[in-house]
Amino acid sequence: MNNKDRLDKLYKESIVNINGVITKAEDAKISIFDRGFLYGDSIYEVTYSEDYCLYFLKEHFDRLYESAKVINLDIYIDRKTLIKESIRTLKESKIPNAYIRIILTRGETEITLDPNSSFRNNYIIIVKPKPKYNQVLYSKGLKLALVSSFINTSNTNRTIVKSGNYLNNVLAINEAKKRNFDDAVMVNNDGNITEGTTFNIWMVRGNTIYTPPNDSGLLKGITREKIIQICSKNNLILKMENFSPEDLLSADEVFITSSGRQVMPIYQINDKIYGEGINEWKMISLLSNKYKELVEKYKCKKEYSYL
Amino acid sequence: MNNKDRLDKLYKESIVNINGVITKAEDAKISIFDRGFLYGDSIYEVTYSEDYCLYFLKEHFDRLYESAKVINLDIYIDRKTLIKESIRTLKESKIPNAYIRIILTRGETEITLDPNSSFRNNYIIIVKPKPKYNQVLYSKGLKLALVSSFINTSNTNRTIVKSGNYLNNVLAINEAKKRNFDDAVMVNNDGNITEGTTFNIWMVRGNTIYTPPNDSGLLKGITREKIIQICSKNNLILKMENFSPEDLLSADEVFITSSGRQVMPIYQINDKIYGEGINEWKMISLLSNKYKELVEKYKCKKEYSYL
Repeated sequence: MNNKDRLDKLYKESIVNINGVITKAEDAKISIFDRGFLYGDSIYEVTYSEDYCLYFLKEHFDRLYESAKVINLDIYIDRKTLIKESIRTLKESKIPNAYIRIILTRGETEITLDPNSSFRNNYIIIVKPKPKYNQVLYSKGLKLALVSSFINTSNTNRTIVKSGNYLNNVLAINEAKKRNFDDAVMVNNDGNITEGTTFNIWMVRGNTIYTPPNDSGLLKGITREKIIQICSKNNLILKMENFSPEDLLSADEVFITSSGRQVMPIYQINDKIYGEGINEWKMISLLSNKYKELVEKYKCKKEYSYL
Repeated sequence: MNNKDRLDKLYKESIVNINGVITKAEDAKISIFDRGFLYGDSIYEVTYSEDYCLYFLKEHFDRLYESAKVINLDIYIDRKTLIKESIRTLKESKIPNAYIRIILTRGETEITLDPNSSFRNNYIIIVKPKPKYNQVLYSKGLKLALVSSFINTSNTNRTIVKSGNYLNNVLAINEAKKRNFDDAVMVNNDGNITEGTTFNIWMVRGNTIYTPPNDSGLLKGITREKIIQICSKNNLILKMENFSPEDLLSADEVFITSSGRQVMPIYQINDKIYGEGINEWKMISLLSNKYKELVEKYKCKKEYSYL
């Protein structure tokens, strides 16, 4: 399939809710004066449903509201309305296993960077089928490029938020693809590992699990939080501390987490190969199974179901 | 006027060209799948016209194409077409002294950060009346806040480009406004001064003019380039070298440059006041006059005129 066909497929499979109006994907349009378009002045969340139930919505909405606070984005829409509209869009889509992206912008304003010009939001909810990751990746692992030129903290004092400013990550994945890798992992200003373009990163050395700390310039992943809880419940040794590219490249096992990919092993970073498959990676197998159990045990609240 | 009224005024006064179709501002819409909206994956330029002539278009288009190169954005539209459409939009607007913003995005793609999914661009040309800056600011000067928490280089190896990722600057101006200043000036990772949210910054100490160097994490302003040329032609001592917030706060004169504001003096940064007005700032007066002469002498090429 070429890029145009992929876009057409997306249009065919998706539906979009713009400020409460559900529309066909190809008709889903926003003002070019929206601050999300002009400045990336927006925040968003992505989560998934399985079997007509939206997973971890509370956690994602909590983070959305935290993002809003960090960038001083006033939300004029009630949280309940946003949740109701999300469920309504899912229901309308009739997709049992869906991807849902909720975007909230500072709305249209006169052309000025000053966010105090804002007086309303625009919200956009995109629903499409959950992407199917190649199952081989879960047994063989992903190939990452370490792209040290793409630093991931543009700020000292500000928590990283899920915003409409993703150009750095776009360029990081571009470098990785050029070098024939699947995706990219980045460092922060201090030269320590932070995260990937759309995922958190973890390494295992002996029986200790490591992941960069919250203040390393990473986005606090919902799946990352779940893995932290799993480690704690199962008395696994987890250290949230800074580590260098050298540490990462000499680790025993490396894996990534994201809401979409869940727990995915890493086969290779740069020239380093971590092993020949999931059978060799005991800790990843364990965590991956524990995470699956957690998902399976998840009791769907009535308000998150759209059957 | 409240924020809603300001937006309505913008709608009334502007016209927009989207991919060659001129439309009313309030009807100017773009797909929510455009990468400019989803990721800020776009570049842009702003310039101005006076008396039906578009100024320094060549310089702005040169920079647009440089920005494209830096972020690997393929431009599928011919430069001549973009220029012709810009002039056509200006002509249609009938505005003699106009603001023009040209935005170029990586188009709509399936939802992926990978820019290799792109197969076309979207371009948007916004034309509206040139904003009138309060003339008092040219005699009394602007008040800037030094916002040291908003670092301006997110990258080590990459030149800063005029992209759709402006959230950092949105937040910097927000902090400045909260502290009752007009705008913000930022530092880079090394703690040196880089630029303002939408302008370059300069200081004068004795008879020497200073501005941060190209590799300090600044956007190379077109007006900055003109001032550099003016310094050279008039044998003024210009040093393009890094300086600290302390240096800036102990300077004799400080000014900013941008295409819209041209040369504007600074009255105050944080607690430091530089003087009581333009009569005290000899170097700023000189440079401001030389810049005005340069603009007056500008011979409008036929292809940049829309009378």
